[in-house]
Amino acid sequence: MTEPAQAPRFPTSLGTSDADSITLLGQDLAADLMGKVGFGELALWLVTQQRPAPAQVRVFEAVLVALADHGFTPTAIAARLTYLSAPDSVQGALAAGLLGGGSRFLGVTEDAGRFLADTLAGAAELPSDDAAFDALALAAVRAARERRQLVPGLGHPVHKVTDPRTPVLIRIAEEEGTYGPHLRLFEAIGRVHPQVLGRILPLNGAGTCGAALADLGLPPDLLRGFALLARTAGLLGHLAEERRRPIGMDIYQTVEHNAVYLPPPGS
Amino acid sequence: MTEPAQAPRFPTSLGTSDADSITLLGQDLAADLMGKVGFGELALWLVTQQRPAPAQVRVFEAVLVALADHGFTPTAIAARLTYLSAPDSVQGALAAGLLGGGSRFLGVTEDAGRFLADTLAGAAELPSDDAAFDALALAAVRAARERRQLVPGLGHPVHKVTDPRTPVLIRIAEEEGTYGPHLRLFEAIGRVHPQVLGRILPLNGAGTCGAALADLGLPPDLLRGFALLARTAGLLGHLAEERRRPIGMDIYQTVEHNAVYLPPPGS
Amino acid sequence: MTEPAQAPRFPTSLGTSDADSITLLGQDLAADLMGKVGFGELALWLVTQQRPAPAQVRVFEAVLVALADHGFTPTAIAARLTYLSAPDSVQGALAAGLLGGGSRFLGVTEDAGRFLADTLAGAAELPSDDAAFDALALAAVRAARERRQLVPGLGHPVHKVTDPRTPVLIRIAEEEGTYGPHLRLFEAIGRVHPQVLGRILPLNGAGTCGAALADLGLPPDLLRGFALLARTAGLLGHLAEERRRPIGMDIYQTVEHNAVYLPPPGS
Amino acid sequence: MTEPAQAPRFPTSLGTSDADSITLLGQDLAADLMGKVGFGELALWLVTQQRPAPAQVRVFEAVLVALADHGFTPTAIAARLTYLSAPDSVQGALAAGLLGGGSRFLGVTEDAGRFLADTLAGAAELPSDDAAFDALALAAVRAARERRQLVPGLGHPVHKVTDPRTPVLIRIAEEEGTYGPHLRLFEAIGRVHPQVLGRILPLNGAGTCGAALADLGLPPDLLRGFALLARTAGLLGHLAEERRRPIGMDIYQTVEHNAVYLPPPGS
Repeated sequence: MTEPAQAPRFPTSLGTSDADSITLLGQDLAADLMGKVGFGELALWLVTQQRPAPAQVRVFEAVLVALADHGFTPTAIAARLTYLSAPDSVQGALAAGLLGGGSRFLGVTEDAGRFLADTLAGAAELPSDDAAFDALALAAVRAARERRQLVPGLGHPVHKVTDPRTPVLIRIAEEEGTYGPHLRLFEAIGRVHPQVLGRILPLNGAGTCGAALADLGLPPDLLRGFALLARTAGLLGHLAEERRRPIGMDIYQTVEHNAVYLPPPGS
Repeated sequence: MTEPAQAPRFPTSLGTSDADSITLLGQDLAADLMGKVGFGELALWLVTQQRPAPAQVRVFEAVLVALADHGFTPTAIAARLTYLSAPDSVQGALAAGLLGGGSRFLGVTEDAGRFLADTLAGAAELPSDDAAFDALALAAVRAARERRQLVPGLGHPVHKVTDPRTPVLIRIAEEEGTYGPHLRLFEAIGRVHPQVLGRILPLNGAGTCGAALADLGLPPDLLRGFALLARTAGLLGHLAEERRRPIGMDIYQTVEHNAVYLPPPGS
Repeated sequence: MTEPAQAPRFPTSLGTSDADSITLLGQDLAADLMGKVGFGELALWLVTQQRPAPAQVRVFEAVLVALADHGFTPTAIAARLTYLSAPDSVQGALAAGLLGGGSRFLGVTEDAGRFLADTLAGAAELPSDDAAFDALALAAVRAARERRQLVPGLGHPVHKVTDPRTPVLIRIAEEEGTYGPHLRLFEAIGRVHPQVLGRILPLNGAGTCGAALADLGLPPDLLRGFALLARTAGLLGHLAEERRRPIGMDIYQTVEHNAVYLPPPGS
Repeated sequence: MTEPAQAPRFPTSLGTSDADSITLLGQDLAADLMGKVGFGELALWLVTQQRPAPAQVRVFEAVLVALADHGFTPTAIAARLTYLSAPDSVQGALAAGLLGGGSRFLGVTEDAGRFLADTLAGAAELPSDDAAFDALALAAVRAARERRQLVPGLGHPVHKVTDPRTPVLIRIAEEEGTYGPHLRLFEAIGRVHPQVLGRILPLNGAGTCGAALADLGLPPDLLRGFALLARTAGLLGHLAEERRRPIGMDIYQTVEHNAVYLPPPGS
């Protein structure tokens, strides 16, 4: 341990408060935000620290709605099992659910956003027409193949032809004027990948969400956070349903009853 | 281990999907929800599994906005420190922040909602005028005092006279027609408690949120979950700020540099 | 925000370090602890900040061994599912597993320790013979019944007659001279409860662990922490097995394939 | 959703139980393990599913003891802050602390083990003498430099010359006959790196732990888990100290009082 430091200094621009007022994002929370600004709009604003335009809010909320719930995902199951074990700790059950939001299942949004952003950043110049986007897409898909990596955003275990979220989100982005190079490149990937992969895969909804968020100017590092915010709402839905019609005990007992003991070698 | 069970059955009403469509809350996700329903509305709908009225959505979103961020709370600090240590895991940092959402700091919303609901449930009959609400409030405050317990929703370390969120949220509830017995009892507590406690305390914003949510028909067990959903947005704001202008290392070093080693007894 | 505080001061007795040495619990970590003190001994020492006697260490480690793993518990399943979803974050999978260590499944050790401690603390005088312990136990079981609460430590879903851990742990405590009033009261509960409950239940292993830890002088608030430390080792075993012979995907798919969609009312 | 699956089957070799006995790792838990096998030994056994030799146990426990606590790390601070906010959830505070066990601060053990294992695996043949180990080490350090990456295991912010844990752990490994190619390569890195890096750095304790664990045959993927197990004991020590002499509120208030509000641009 060293000598005491100077008085520390922790800057923040999120907000402050005094006896009579609360400032959030430069606004008076009570007078300017409550009842006037939606939660989705506030969430986007909290991350960018810039008031989003209505067009951006609509696309952003469409993304959150698209990602909020996917049924009995490993995250939802883990949340329900944790709630079963610790019903006095909603925050524990939520946290356990979110901790599954890693690379394998919830990472597509971030991975797709990052893949598209990296591809665009690595281009000699930004493509200006569909043919140029197609060429850039083709090169990216080929490079992924050489690295023995999947292209994030392609394919879905259930929606084999079209993921219904994809065309809707693209349309909303076009309506709101936020359709940009990431979505354009993503659609190009949708067109050209069969040439490289030898089969036709759908552009999945989570990947489209990543492209749409990237076109809102959001950095790849934060895309997983938005997917997690969306999923928090879905997890609350699962926990509410677990209170009313629980299945956690049945899941636990299904595993327990179907466990097969194989003695370890040497025993 | 026992014999294998019958084929298990896990019912859910949240949603389902097939090759061509995704159903969420009985709606077509892509056609009926994306771009048409806000994230706040969906979150409330996911929990109740009933489509909320616009009036309920406005009050609900006002609550989420009121609870989203409170500056450098222990939860925000824990989230930033965890992000510092594990920047590759946004879900870990979020989860760590939410795990502080327990009884001490984030529990007021739930505790107030529960206190008001229990008080109303324990009344011989639902009060019908202000005098009757005052009497019920007085009895509840006295009973809490005898149990040596604080009345949740009273007092605030900074807003000593009026918490600016309280009158605004009450007004919004009145505007939207959701002002009900919980808020009415809460205001009565605000009037009568000086008779018992000997001093005048403000009705705090988090408690008002609990009362407002209870008047939307939401059960006390889930109120903490809504506070956590709101706080998830605030935590994302903190993590985004930590990326741009980090303070986590400074917090860590402030503690480290000001640590004072006191050898344990007997060493 | 107020004016900056004075230089803060954070006392700790756990340890300190300088350029040449590391002090832990008043000892030189490298010279006195590594290779000389076991991990179980250190864990107990870290909590009490007093060097435990060998007798205490033996009982403590027997408790940890007894609690380390219980097969496919909800916590183990949640950990495996989280590891499936986020294989790059072992800390997330461990944390998710531990978050199920709440009141329902992992709480018996703490609840039993607390129940016994509270009963002893509430006695007019500490019982001095078996008859007096029996009387105290009988009163405690009756009081629990009147509160419509289960006596923690009684009963087991599988070990209907005797939980094999119980007699062994009691014997070890006797061998080591740590058998004290908590274990004695626990055995008394084992004798007398049929008079009140109308059936004979075994003293379960987790409850015996709580009694044994309480007789080591450990406070009830920390007993859950020791159960969690033990379970961390078990969860690492599950994660290691998940790497070699995964079942997480099978669990997820079992739930997914057996989901039954019941449309919400009104849709 | 598809048709129900066949009866699922979840194999495990960790253990099983019936009415009268509990089997863990092929042993009778109550008769063969409790009071006879230490917790550290069991933890290693649970992961490898092979009974470790006493030599391996001694080295393993020395590693756990070395990694258990490092004072006011970001993880310890996060755990204490979470315990402050949610004192009813020890599991939440522990989990929050562990979630900081990611790449930045707790990752050295894993990163060093992986770096050494990868280097050895990539060698044309296993080096047979110090000169060959030096050559392999030199190539590895150079390659890391070209990738603009640090060599994990080199350097320490406090122990600038010698980390006191390093020579002790190496000696213990030699005494127990577990000193192997990973430790030998690690020491070679300690000798040769000044040629590449232009300065002399110590081999740090966490890196030595990674090398020692790798020489026990443990795979890199699990090394972080052992560091987390060790750290769980340290965190319990912090939480126990927080109960007796709390600093969490002081940490929180230090940050809060020294917050500096910088209005966001445009407000």
